[in-house]
Amino acid sequence: MGEEATRVMIGVNESSLKGYPHPSISSKGAFDWTVSKIIRNNVSAFHLLFLHVQVPDEDGYDDVDSIYASGEDFKNMKQQEKARGTHLLEYFVNRCNEIGVTCEAWIKQGDPKEVILNEVKRVRPDLLVVGSRGLGPFQKVFVGTVSEFCWKHAECPVMTIKRNADETPRDPVDD
Amino acid sequence: MGEEATRVMIGVNESSLKGYPHPSISSKGAFDWTVSKIIRNNVSAFHLLFLHVQVPDEDGYDDVDSIYASGEDFKNMKQQEKARGTHLLEYFVNRCNEIGVTCEAWIKQGDPKEVILNEVKRVRPDLLVVGSRGLGPFQKVFVGTVSEFCWKHAECPVMTIKRNADETPRDPVDD
Repeated sequence: MGEEATRVMIGVNESSLKGYPHPSISSKGAFDWTVSKIIRNNVSAFHLLFLHVQVPDEDGYDDVDSIYASGEDFKNMKQQEKARGTHLLEYFVNRCNEIGVTCEAWIKQGDPKEVILNEVKRVRPDLLVVGSRGLGPFQKVFVGTVSEFCWKHAECPVMTIKRNADETPRDPVDD
Repeated sequence: MGEEATRVMIGVNESSLKGYPHPSISSKGAFDWTVSKIIRNNVSAFHLLFLHVQVPDEDGYDDVDSIYASGEDFKNMKQQEKARGTHLLEYFVNRCNEIGVTCEAWIKQGDPKEVILNEVKRVRPDLLVVGSRGLGPFQKVFVGTVSEFCWKHAECPVMTIKRNADETPRDPVDD
């Protein structure tokens, strides 16, 4: 039982239903599970690392009717997007402060699968926790595209936390 | 942070190199990892559940030259086999006693994938930990037959602990 804290990386994203700054049901579930089942009251023995991956040109751009007339417009939009991601991370950092667990949080852009794998290589956590929508038999094709890829390829143990059935939205693709 | 201990089920099997009562490299790795990275010094907050699955007519019968002349012979052989499994579990129970973590251990016979899934359903642990040989690119076809099945189908979060590269035997299929 070493002196160094166990470093747990948690991949988090925004709610597809409520948008930024709200965390997705599965991100929140992954965090809550880690706190209640792993960290418990042993807060000084753990250090949490929150990674939020923003997918360029796909995620969170709900202002589809806007007209971008200049490079400046796009730059503003990108800054706005980054700010939204920061507010998402603020939710988790605040929760950690309340509980008394130290943490770090950061944003990366790119394909979530690749970014998470690269960040695991770079940061070397003891454990990666990712939420999963855990889609049912009729949506099997979607199950864990990101979580399954991480589970197979990440260079550290990976834990996938599925949503509870009673938290699943009407359309299970939502999160 | 509830009052009840976090119940961690760990699937364990015997070493294919040394046979009973020695645990496989990956079983031992899964246990060591759980203790050093999750339980740490918070021993009263966890309860470990060791499940050893014996595969009938396949595992551990190294007395292939024996002649079985009666039903009694087979019965004796079965009892011997069961005793060997008990000695494997003794290794983990002793380690728990040393550390001060409460535990339970039991043996089931059958197909490991199905037995583990059924036992998760029955016992409802908070977390299932399974070791994996983590075979490399040339053995991809074998990767995680049991661990992958559990990861996809078990009704609780599943963590797979791969062996360290420096623990891998000359023939990586061994464990």
